[in-house]
Amino acid sequence: MNIRTCKTIQGRRKLVEKLCKTGLSNIGMYPAEAERASFKNCENMIGVTHVPLGIAGPIRITSCRMSRVACHDYYLPLATTEGALVASVNRGCKAISESGGSTVFVEEVGVTRGPVFKTTGLGQSMALKKWIEDHERELQKSAQVTSAHLTLKKFGIRIAGRYVFVRFYFDTQDAMGMNMATIAASAMVRVIEKATHVHCVSLAGNFDVDKKPSWLNALSGRGKRVWAEVTLSKRTLKDTLKTTARRMYETWIAKCMVGSAMSGSMGYNAQFANVIASLFIATGQDPGHVVEGSLGVTTTEVVEAGGLSVSVYLPDLMVGTVGGGTGLAAQREALALLGVAGGNKGKNAQTFAGIVAAAVLAGEISLLASLSEGTLAAAHKRLARGKRMTNDKSINKQMNG
Amino acid sequence: MNIRTCKTIQGRRKLVEKLCKTGLSNIGMYPAEAERASFKNCENMIGVTHVPLGIAGPIRITSCRMSRVACHDYYLPLATTEGALVASVNRGCKAISESGGSTVFVEEVGVTRGPVFKTTGLGQSMALKKWIEDHERELQKSAQVTSAHLTLKKFGIRIAGRYVFVRFYFDTQDAMGMNMATIAASAMVRVIEKATHVHCVSLAGNFDVDKKPSWLNALSGRGKRVWAEVTLSKRTLKDTLKTTARRMYETWIAKCMVGSAMSGSMGYNAQFANVIASLFIATGQDPGHVVEGSLGVTTTEVVEAGGLSVSVYLPDLMVGTVGGGTGLAAQREALALLGVAGGNKGKNAQTFAGIVAAAVLAGEISLLASLSEGTLAAAHKRLARGKRMTNDKSINKQMNG
Amino acid sequence: MNIRTCKTIQGRRKLVEKLCKTGLSNIGMYPAEAERASFKNCENMIGVTHVPLGIAGPIRITSCRMSRVACHDYYLPLATTEGALVASVNRGCKAISESGGSTVFVEEVGVTRGPVFKTTGLGQSMALKKWIEDHERELQKSAQVTSAHLTLKKFGIRIAGRYVFVRFYFDTQDAMGMNMATIAASAMVRVIEKATHVHCVSLAGNFDVDKKPSWLNALSGRGKRVWAEVTLSKRTLKDTLKTTARRMYETWIAKCMVGSAMSGSMGYNAQFANVIASLFIATGQDPGHVVEGSLGVTTTEVVEAGGLSVSVYLPDLMVGTVGGGTGLAAQREALALLGVAGGNKGKNAQTFAGIVAAAVLAGEISLLASLSEGTLAAAHKRLARGKRMTNDKSINKQMNG
Amino acid sequence: MNIRTCKTIQGRRKLVEKLCKTGLSNIGMYPAEAERASFKNCENMIGVTHVPLGIAGPIRITSCRMSRVACHDYYLPLATTEGALVASVNRGCKAISESGGSTVFVEEVGVTRGPVFKTTGLGQSMALKKWIEDHERELQKSAQVTSAHLTLKKFGIRIAGRYVFVRFYFDTQDAMGMNMATIAASAMVRVIEKATHVHCVSLAGNFDVDKKPSWLNALSGRGKRVWAEVTLSKRTLKDTLKTTARRMYETWIAKCMVGSAMSGSMGYNAQFANVIASLFIATGQDPGHVVEGSLGVTTTEVVEAGGLSVSVYLPDLMVGTVGGGTGLAAQREALALLGVAGGNKGKNAQTFAGIVAAAVLAGEISLLASLSEGTLAAAHKRLARGKRMTNDKSINKQMNG
Repeated sequence: MNIRTCKTIQGRRKLVEKLCKTGLSNIGMYPAEAERASFKNCENMIGVTHVPLGIAGPIRITSCRMSRVACHDYYLPLATTEGALVASVNRGCKAISESGGSTVFVEEVGVTRGPVFKTTGLGQSMALKKWIEDHERELQKSAQVTSAHLTLKKFGIRIAGRYVFVRFYFDTQDAMGMNMATIAASAMVRVIEKATHVHCVSLAGNFDVDKKPSWLNALSGRGKRVWAEVTLSKRTLKDTLKTTARRMYETWIAKCMVGSAMSGSMGYNAQFANVIASLFIATGQDPGHVVEGSLGVTTTEVVEAGGLSVSVYLPDLMVGTVGGGTGLAAQREALALLGVAGGNKGKNAQTFAGIVAAAVLAGEISLLASLSEGTLAAAHKRLARGKRMTNDKSINKQMNG
Repeated sequence: MNIRTCKTIQGRRKLVEKLCKTGLSNIGMYPAEAERASFKNCENMIGVTHVPLGIAGPIRITSCRMSRVACHDYYLPLATTEGALVASVNRGCKAISESGGSTVFVEEVGVTRGPVFKTTGLGQSMALKKWIEDHERELQKSAQVTSAHLTLKKFGIRIAGRYVFVRFYFDTQDAMGMNMATIAASAMVRVIEKATHVHCVSLAGNFDVDKKPSWLNALSGRGKRVWAEVTLSKRTLKDTLKTTARRMYETWIAKCMVGSAMSGSMGYNAQFANVIASLFIATGQDPGHVVEGSLGVTTTEVVEAGGLSVSVYLPDLMVGTVGGGTGLAAQREALALLGVAGGNKGKNAQTFAGIVAAAVLAGEISLLASLSEGTLAAAHKRLARGKRMTNDKSINKQMNG
Repeated sequence: MNIRTCKTIQGRRKLVEKLCKTGLSNIGMYPAEAERASFKNCENMIGVTHVPLGIAGPIRITSCRMSRVACHDYYLPLATTEGALVASVNRGCKAISESGGSTVFVEEVGVTRGPVFKTTGLGQSMALKKWIEDHERELQKSAQVTSAHLTLKKFGIRIAGRYVFVRFYFDTQDAMGMNMATIAASAMVRVIEKATHVHCVSLAGNFDVDKKPSWLNALSGRGKRVWAEVTLSKRTLKDTLKTTARRMYETWIAKCMVGSAMSGSMGYNAQFANVIASLFIATGQDPGHVVEGSLGVTTTEVVEAGGLSVSVYLPDLMVGTVGGGTGLAAQREALALLGVAGGNKGKNAQTFAGIVAAAVLAGEISLLASLSEGTLAAAHKRLARGKRMTNDKSINKQMNG
Repeated sequence: MNIRTCKTIQGRRKLVEKLCKTGLSNIGMYPAEAERASFKNCENMIGVTHVPLGIAGPIRITSCRMSRVACHDYYLPLATTEGALVASVNRGCKAISESGGSTVFVEEVGVTRGPVFKTTGLGQSMALKKWIEDHERELQKSAQVTSAHLTLKKFGIRIAGRYVFVRFYFDTQDAMGMNMATIAASAMVRVIEKATHVHCVSLAGNFDVDKKPSWLNALSGRGKRVWAEVTLSKRTLKDTLKTTARRMYETWIAKCMVGSAMSGSMGYNAQFANVIASLFIATGQDPGHVVEGSLGVTTTEVVEAGGLSVSVYLPDLMVGTVGGGTGLAAQREALALLGVAGGNKGKNAQTFAGIVAAAVLAGEISLLASLSEGTLAAAHKRLARGKRMTNDKSINKQMNG
């Protein structure tokens, strides 16, 4: 008897317990609804991993989308096992909300799929490029046939000798869209291969670039491009963040600018990944895309009256509110908590992207503030002695960046 | 009444349900043990996110550590919401095991913490560098005082004008060690500041580099450096992977080498992130470190008799078997399933790192094989029609790279 | 008396000789025509540096431009002080010509200038972007007014908080065009500042990116994008290059692909810089642009009958045949030698770009061949003993990559 | 008759004139001494290229080397064809000298050579690494035998599957040393191959990294690591540089920090390449190394009383005062002008490296000042009208960055 032939989650779990001589009773505890995952989200399912879910916020967000400005307070669901992360983001949310909220902007770039073709030489490579450019309409049609929710937006082509890389950009509405994009790209590739007799070596040629850190994504964008911004008042900097505009600015220059330059980093920020990861897991996003979400630039500037303007720019945010893990019970509840569960002509995914940007901004603010304080010793020692979590602990966590 | 003042998970959840006018009943379902997370892992906890847990394997691993060679079969716990990932890794495990197993190597680099100091000019910058180099012993002692499980291994210093960046490397045994490293670095920074009167602008100066993709980590390593390798037989390539050595090799060159070069990528691989993320979530690692785990190089080479040698190299793997999320109920069960739960003088973390490398190798093999097949249309269509998951589906998922 | 007040080259030279107590008689030797440089090319001129000029070739090039295919043999003027470079390129030229010549392709990308604006926040940043996009026509006009030889082709805009970066692409016909682009960009910036009241912090905001290695240039191109290709026969590989297709391919994979990946390189080639530098100096190009010319990808592939297909791709080649140093006496003679001196509606610069690509291909072939031979000891020793230059020496030089 | 068989420079030139139907009389004009280049520096020599040589300075430099502080005024020889470069550097020299001179620091890293070996698998790769580490002494000896002026300093090893990359660092005294390093590395490779029976695929495996922009060189250094620094007074900023500390600082942040981050640059500076290229050509350095010299970080900071502290950091400067082009007549005169011609136990090369750093600092200061002024229109127009060069022109040239 083996795992594959077991028909039930419980049966498989029992078998693994036996094979590995270990108990899995906690993994076996979950609501009945979670069982549906075994049909669409996870093969050989034996149970679930429980990731603690905390709430940060409210965070006030002023979203600007197509001339429409909306202001709303959000409670952020963060799934994490790292103590102090929620507390840190919470502090950032408080600072942002006190300052009138964060302005966010979202630009639809589109999910990409990047096949690579192999020709007989430069001549054929150039000809293939021309053929694809000349048949954009036809290719668009062949893509659209594969899904009612997908549109080919544009493409870019690069050539190195016999290799021709195509980067297709798709609008996939509220879905993150990687699977739809793959199917559509596959259809287009068949059309191209049939007409040109050029072979596609790989439907995914690392020109997408999926889940790898890359300058192509950072510069050309992928998924959604998002920005968030706030101007912190001197009072908030002092009372909520226990620092000053000048100190936070100094920390930013030293760490996010010169420090990132000295380490060959693609992330010119304090650290986006923690916030992205916890929001992604809570809402059923693909956690592999944390890699892409970690790219981006934080800026700060001291403004009059001792305030500090802070902004984040994320060029490569892959998110959706339908498909993948977003339909699972707990994940869907987390999206509903933000008012963005399900499909809504692309608007839910855009709103969610804006929320992610604001949450990342909250994380940056709290982390930069902590680092600029320079009085961490006490908190560290308490943590080292295993004391119960307090606000101080947030400081330690915020260090991790 | 607000979230912060609620004393229980349930109380907070009820409050959030009311504030956001949404139901969170699924989030509220979890084993009693998970409740402990609210004390150490997650503030403002309102429940848990259930991430489906599937099993891939067994995968045979031959581990070489200090002249001792051990061979073992592992069942890999993968927490994921992305259909077909487990099936894909499973296929890779099968291919590897059929071929006699994967050889893995683990090198202890050490967790790093990288403070940045600000001097009055180049002269003082150079003097600070010299002082730190001359007082290594003293600094080591001040670090060791902070924890019985931590040792300062070495450090590197870089200077740009008034900025002095120090990268401390620590051995933290079986812990991933970021928090311990922060506390130790803080102690050393106090010693340095006191003796030299040079101010530390930030305890974390993006010279660590924590959770940002960076060449410094890729080149100098962070956490553990791991390698895994296998030589696939012609038969396995044909029967299990439905491809040939030549086709997989062609896909590798086009995608992982030329493709990554053409897109300015830091990942010269098919895609490490999915496997890393699912193993990390299942075992309570910090998912922000998926960013670092996505760096690395896959190599392939056609060998005699139609076989293919495949290897992966991960220069920056941050893992632990104690601390953080590893102590939570389900996560600990997943580690126990691999025989590496808890502390063991650093050996558990090393073994776990080797398992991650082999799992990543399995993922690379299956994904490269799928991409090289070139017959994906049928599978895609089935998926598009919402058919129940079958083996074919794995092909689609494997595309996502 | 000081240098600035001296009116003649000779007067200044005498003064420097006196001030520095050193003889400069060789620097003082040059043809009368070179004296004109003191009016346009070099302030405080005291003489010239003599860079030895050697000839490699002929190299046969098949150029494909707008449906017109032209085949021509070129003698390459290479100004260098590094022994063996000319011999090495010469060998590559021979190998290419024997194989029927190199096919080259040239794509006009355009010289770029990238000002950075500073706004009051994200809202104004987005508005500025929209204003620029909406007034493309007006901006084009203000650019064209500055020169009859310049056209604004397109632009791209990126935003990070209060910073708005614009990358203007210009067609500047046969001129490399950096100065023309600066003047035109300045005119456009004035229009933008006047209309929007947003301040331009810097006319050159490192978004150009001029003379710095950057992924933006590598991915988006700058100046001209060029490709060259040839298929070497088994006989040429054996007789002229003393190697085999397989050995050269192995060297390419190990060095240009895996090696560049392991070193975080932007150049996935054996080494473009030497050939670019020597051609640039000989023909009066700006040697600072060697930095950009060093970017790019070399590909190789073993083809039937023991041949090897080799290609180079240079995404960022900044060249011109009028303006700057191209009008100086010796430099103009070198351009005339290639048949591309002076202006010709952009065609001369394009032809020259194609010649550079082919020359770089020759260099790559010879260098990869030498490295693959593995029998360098004898040549090295002769060189170490200071023996007169022979063909063997080329081997040593070719090592330098 | 062909070029190769011609025995004299003149004979070859006449032949090329005939073959290409073009006159080369200017190329044929040079001092008798230059003819010696045809024996060591340039094959198939037909004459010389005259690169105009201008003088900037004096620049005051305070050099700190091994507890010895030396202060000296230097006249910088700059070979260039780009109008306004000398004037721009000259202005920077003036600003620096007025401010008491530039402090420079030089660290000897060593020239590198990076062979790549190919093993049978990870096991052998690890064994090879161990063998090399265990036989450092023996390898050092085999290296030293090849030259009395060379010492193996250290090495680093990286493994990816079957590929083993070794980066040897050599001290080569006053020589840039690339050729010596190649010969020494070749000797060591022979020792390694003989003892381990592992094949070296390429003596240069792009792990050096020679003349390609790379993070490995930027982070680990190559040749010499140099720094230069100065604090500009408010008066100098106003009178000599026509700007203010604040404006220059704003330009630096926008361009060198945020701008470089937004363009994926390896150069976080205004533009090092022009100064490096002109000094390199004037003094007989290898102009291919301009690529490496373009890497680095410029920092600025507003200090009290309206001053500005400015520094440059160049991690990868490849220079020498003996060998290669440094022995040619005009080039040697230029080195003599700086007092660093010939060998001097490594000290001449170090002093020269410090001068390059200070010159680069001068260039950065003048360029950042020009960009921050924002009143370029008039100068541009004059230039466009072809007016004789004036001080204004320097402004335009300084734009090119």
